Amino acid sequence: MIKVSEQFEIKESPLFWPVTPKGHSFLVLDETQIPQKLHYIKVNNTHAAVQVIQQMKTRAFGQFLVVLNAFLLELKKGSSLAPEALLKQLEKTTELLNNSRPTFPFSEVTSSVMYWARHAASEGMDLKEFVSSNIHGYLRGIRERRLERVRKIASIIKNGDSILTHCNVSGELAMAAHIGKQQGKEIHFFATETRPYLQGAKLTCWELRKMGANVTLIADNAVGAVMADGLVDKVIVGSDRSCANGDFANKIGTYQIAILAKEFGIPFYVLTQPSDKIKHGKDIPIEIRDAGELLNYEKKKIISGQVNGFYPAFDVVPYQLITKAIAINIK
Amino acid sequence: MIKVSEQFEIKESPLFWPVTPKGHSFLVLDETQIPQKLHYIKVNNTHAAVQVIQQMKTRAFGQFLVVLNAFLLELKKGSSLAPEALLKQLEKTTELLNNSRPTFPFSEVTSSVMYWARHAASEGMDLKEFVSSNIHGYLRGIRERRLERVRKIASIIKNGDSILTHCNVSGELAMAAHIGKQQGKEIHFFATETRPYLQGAKLTCWELRKMGANVTLIADNAVGAVMADGLVDKVIVGSDRSCANGDFANKIGTYQIAILAKEFGIPFYVLTQPSDKIKHGKDIPIEIRDAGELLNYEKKKIISGQVNGFYPAFDVVPYQLITKAIAINIK
Repeated sequence: MIKVSEQFEIKESPLFWPVTPKGHSFLVLDETQIPQKLHYIKVNNTHAAVQVIQQMKTRAFGQFLVVLNAFLLELKKGSSLAPEALLKQLEKTTELLNNSRPTFPFSEVTSSVMYWARHAASEGMDLKEFVSSNIHGYLRGIRERRLERVRKIASIIKNGDSILTHCNVSGELAMAAHIGKQQGKEIHFFATETRPYLQGAKLTCWELRKMGANVTLIADNAVGAVMADGLVDKVIVGSDRSCANGDFANKIGTYQIAILAKEFGIPFYVLTQPSDKIKHGKDIPIEIRDAGELLNYEKKKIISGQVNGFYPAFDVVPYQLITKAIAINIK
Repeated sequence: MIKVSEQFEIKESPLFWPVTPKGHSFLVLDETQIPQKLHYIKVNNTHAAVQVIQQMKTRAFGQFLVVLNAFLLELKKGSSLAPEALLKQLEKTTELLNNSRPTFPFSEVTSSVMYWARHAASEGMDLKEFVSSNIHGYLRGIRERRLERVRKIASIIKNGDSILTHCNVSGELAMAAHIGKQQGKEIHFFATETRPYLQGAKLTCWELRKMGANVTLIADNAVGAVMADGLVDKVIVGSDRSCANGDFANKIGTYQIAILAKEFGIPFYVLTQPSDKIKHGKDIPIEIRDAGELLNYEKKKIISGQVNGFYPAFDVVPYQLITKAIAINIK
């Protein structure tokens, strides 16, 4: 429990910080097993880290933690290498991570790490020591800013609010709900299922309930209907990547929820990590995942025969549809 | 094969007419088993007919066929009864069918049947003979009008069109696609999954492929994204119930697709069976189905723990969002 003020504490959700270093490996919360069990995957090297990312064992913020922990691991394992050899190793790590998923701006993080590494090498500093300590400091900073954002989210949630969310906001929304509860606010959530991975059904419902919140699951198809019935006061979603102009990419389905919110005059909030590396949303590369993930449910075929599926993993919400971005800089 | 003209024939989809009389029973295509197998359920009495309706073994138009075939069955079984006793039996049948699912206007059909029955009884006619022959004539008429509508749908589909559909249009769209193919039109379909029952994934993809059409499955979440990418030229959906002002109810998710079509300037077509029994869409009673259907997938629990689900089976599309209603009178 983290003190918020004299009165309120922040209870941490397992999804808030799903990656932990452990000796010469790190542990990643396997989100695909939730809510059945809280299982952590042991990652021993960068190849395994890339697999965890590509198989979506963790998402969004968790993937950034995987990227940084992969560097910490390589630094540990390479501590006896000469600076030049270690630099080469980190460059290989960078390349593997940058190419793991197209929509994520991993290069914005990996380039910072490489900048520190080259700086240390050129200045004759202890490369491992310098870069590791920078990464640790960077992570502490992000952690503080994310906790700060949890408080901000709590402050925009009013007593009596019914809040619709999509996919999963990696702990922050559920933790804000817990603060709201301590403040005596009556809050209700609608979680969309979030096909095809069902993160809403599996993660968000589980996490919100764990935090003592009142949550109702709906099909992605029911968003328009519950909004039309006046059952939604606010939409709060996360984001996977932001542009200079304010457009952002998030889990497929976010764009249509934003359009529906506009149609029904419902405020639309998004948690962002601003970046100016990409100017407009249309320039964000959208990952098209294997349609098999759409045609099967937990390895059971939903459809027999040869059917084509199209599964863009993300869509882009134009900035005009955002009521307010609750931003933190994680660079 | 039914002749359309010198050149084109209509190939009938199994979903176009999913109910067939057979001796002292009738057979209902079990849509929940498609595409795994083409299995027909034998229905012997009205109670079994109500079960087939409530368990959504068949939907929409198939449910009307079940209602009328339930009457044909009761008439056959009651042929030795005195008119008064048979009338009483039909009244019981009416009550059971009317109360089976709230959103469907079964009473508009059952009241016609009861009118014929009371008329025959009061005029001293052969009740069984008169009502059965009326029902058969009525069904023949609907069949002709539906085939006519298949031709109309084919005529609005242009060469090169990419058409998005939701849930399943009971044969008509797939049959129109087959005509289009004979006419040398290149046509592509997007079928939404249509959670929670996945009728789009299971029925529509299967049916369209069976008719030789080119179909791509997308998550319900991807409608906005494919529209934004300019991949959709038209939306064509069915309807479960219409109002005097043109509003209509259809499978949950239809309303938000209509809003998205408006947002992106995409024509929105709906197949309707007009009725003036209900004035406005807001007066259509919406069936709220057991949330268990949302929380489980083919009897396997998706979510553990106690989670509330909300599953309205239909939503209502306001007439303003309709580009054109392709209507037939089935009364």
